[in-house]
Amino acid sequence: QQVFQPDEHQHIRYNPLKAEWVLVSPHRCKRPWSGQVEKPAEEEVPPHDPNNPLCPGNTRPNGKVNPNYESTYVFTNDFPALLEEAPPVPKSDNPLFQSAPALGTCRVMCFHPRSDITLPLMTLDEVTKVVERWIAESIELGLKYRWVQVFENKGAIMGCSNPHPHCQIWASSFLPNEPRVKDHYQRQYLAKHGRPLLRDYLDQELQKKERLVCENASFVALVPYWAVWPFELLVLPRRHVLRMADLTADEQRLLADIVRQVTTRYDNLFRCNFPYSMGWHGAPTGEAMSEDCQHWVFHGIYLPPLLRSAAVKKFMVGYEMLAQAQRDLTPEQAAQRLRDCSPVHYKLEQ
Amino acid sequence: QQVFQPDEHQHIRYNPLKAEWVLVSPHRCKRPWSGQVEKPAEEEVPPHDPNNPLCPGNTRPNGKVNPNYESTYVFTNDFPALLEEAPPVPKSDNPLFQSAPALGTCRVMCFHPRSDITLPLMTLDEVTKVVERWIAESIELGLKYRWVQVFENKGAIMGCSNPHPHCQIWASSFLPNEPRVKDHYQRQYLAKHGRPLLRDYLDQELQKKERLVCENASFVALVPYWAVWPFELLVLPRRHVLRMADLTADEQRLLADIVRQVTTRYDNLFRCNFPYSMGWHGAPTGEAMSEDCQHWVFHGIYLPPLLRSAAVKKFMVGYEMLAQAQRDLTPEQAAQRLRDCSPVHYKLEQ
Ligand SMILES: O=P(O)(O)O[C@H]1O[C@H](CO)[C@@H](O)[C@H](O)[C@H]1O
Ligand SMILES: O=P(O)(O)O[C@H]1O[C@H](CO)[C@@H](O)[C@H](O)[C@H]1O
Repeated sequence: QQVFQPDEHQHIRYNPLKAEWVLVSPHRCKRPWSGQVEKPAEEEVPPHDPNNPLCPGNTRPNGKVNPNYESTYVFTNDFPALLEEAPPVPKSDNPLFQSAPALGTCRVMCFHPRSDITLPLMTLDEVTKVVERWIAESIELGLKYRWVQVFENKGAIMGCSNPHPHCQIWASSFLPNEPRVKDHYQRQYLAKHGRPLLRDYLDQELQKKERLVCENASFVALVPYWAVWPFELLVLPRRHVLRMADLTADEQRLLADIVRQVTTRYDNLFRCNFPYSMGWHGAPTGEAMSEDCQHWVFHGIYLPPLLRSAAVKKFMVGYEMLAQAQRDLTPEQAAQRLRDCSPVHYKLEQ
Repeated sequence: QQVFQPDEHQHIRYNPLKAEWVLVSPHRCKRPWSGQVEKPAEEEVPPHDPNNPLCPGNTRPNGKVNPNYESTYVFTNDFPALLEEAPPVPKSDNPLFQSAPALGTCRVMCFHPRSDITLPLMTLDEVTKVVERWIAESIELGLKYRWVQVFENKGAIMGCSNPHPHCQIWASSFLPNEPRVKDHYQRQYLAKHGRPLLRDYLDQELQKKERLVCENASFVALVPYWAVWPFELLVLPRRHVLRMADLTADEQRLLADIVRQVTTRYDNLFRCNFPYSMGWHGAPTGEAMSEDCQHWVFHGIYLPPLLRSAAVKKFMVGYEMLAQAQRDLTPEQAAQRLRDCSPVHYKLEQ
């Protein structure tokens, strides 16, 4: 009988934040590819496009005019999925037809006045301004709303309709599914083990080292043991921080640094403008500000779709949708690949 | 103050099978679209392609030769995500690094000898043969494995690398996430209400009627109240059936009929070869065959990505991945659109 090798033999792994499993099938890396290939990401973006509604000074489809902003710029989405007001939803006592109120707002945040730049190509000062604005928005919206989701969809493949560097901020009166589930399991872990789940997890990953990708004095980026997407990353603070808003000025700059490090390695992996969806999770806000949230640890999540090259993505389809997520290369192999990437962006090489 | 209208005003809805919520934002249907458009699905498929490894008589990349099959044809995937044997996975008592054994097999099932045909264009007899084969495979694999997932990825947009009409069957020693969660909530519902969840649900949908799409003597296809994908469908049996294998010969033919009805309406909606992932869920198998599974109701799930046209899909990205699923048109509007489609396939019209 052969000895089990996690990089050779199929197994399932548990995500303790969500009580879900992922199927890992490393032997499947040998399979040839004959499926859909993606168009390479648009490379010819002009610095300013008079028709792009995100550029400074331009008029948006609803007639509003953007200021000539020089750093970040935030406005309310012209077609928001969440509005600040809505008529009250009648209560239902039928367990099979439950609806509930949802109030909120959706904002768009431009990172930079130029369209032809991305986070890894911005200066540390510029990305620090982005972090500061994430925090300012989170604080303002967090006064009123239970959850403020800062997220970035990057690349047409991730449903991003505009190449201008930007993210979105959706605030809601309800705690959405993903953070609700993570809230539950983090709370349970603290009650049982006396320490926050992600504090224990970081300590052990720092010892094991095999899934670490890059780090600085305040943050560590690693491929989680339970990663679902091929090159998924988790960004964890070295200190027990509950919310992004709790970061000191130094830590904000170091968060900007780790964002630049991560996105540089991503672009270098397949030498392309690497697509992903990413976002930040921390303790809930609104009324939760006065509740005990010590079980939470602030963290960032990067979910990139590419698998083999700039043109071949991992499809999360039939089996994944109906049964369980499945991955081919192991998280350890993915971490190794990202560690092997240069920390200098390929466009900035001599 | 305005009165709440579910087709006008945002709200969240509860999925009792999974204890998850979906954000419904009907006002957002008014938004213009400037995002990625998909290549229209390949329309020029030859009936037989000597290089297609799924066609009768052809040699697959691994050297095996397909028989000259005349109806359905099943073989083990040449690059399966699950193998029947693997070395034992060592036990871990660390709650943050849990892995477990996974054994199984992956099969490919061709629906028809011709590549240029799809389920709605096949005859009722031909689709009945497909249903019979689904059942035969489920019974055989269900003797050994706890879960047998029959699923179809249709269209390049759904990661399907081959236009030949086919599906996949992945059997596993473990109960995957999705059925595990559904098992839990169906069990809880039966314990509390004395009837299976999906039995109660069907009764109420048959009375309300607003989400019904098509039906026959044994099956009903409807857009579930908690649908996440724009034109998601749920297929339910009128009788309390636990597993596909429990269907009578008459019911098998009626299942083939409802499959043809659903896929015909789908193709007619945007007059294209409509992509989707779909699959069947029923009570677990293997050792579960001797356990009490009365809380289960056999059902089919269709998860199609298109939103506005053959070229514009719904992206489940940043907010959806990190927070919660979101939809624009309501399930009732989707059901109306599908009801309005002709029951005759546009390619078969006079
Ligand atoms: O049919 P294939 O090419 O083996 O694979 C396809 O379906 C699988 C099951 O949903 C996914 O894991 C793959 O990402 C997808 O490309
Ligand atoms: O940025 P947009 O175009 O408003 O929208 C994009 O992100 C949203 C949030 O993840 C998704 O709901 C949309 O499907 C996607 O196209």
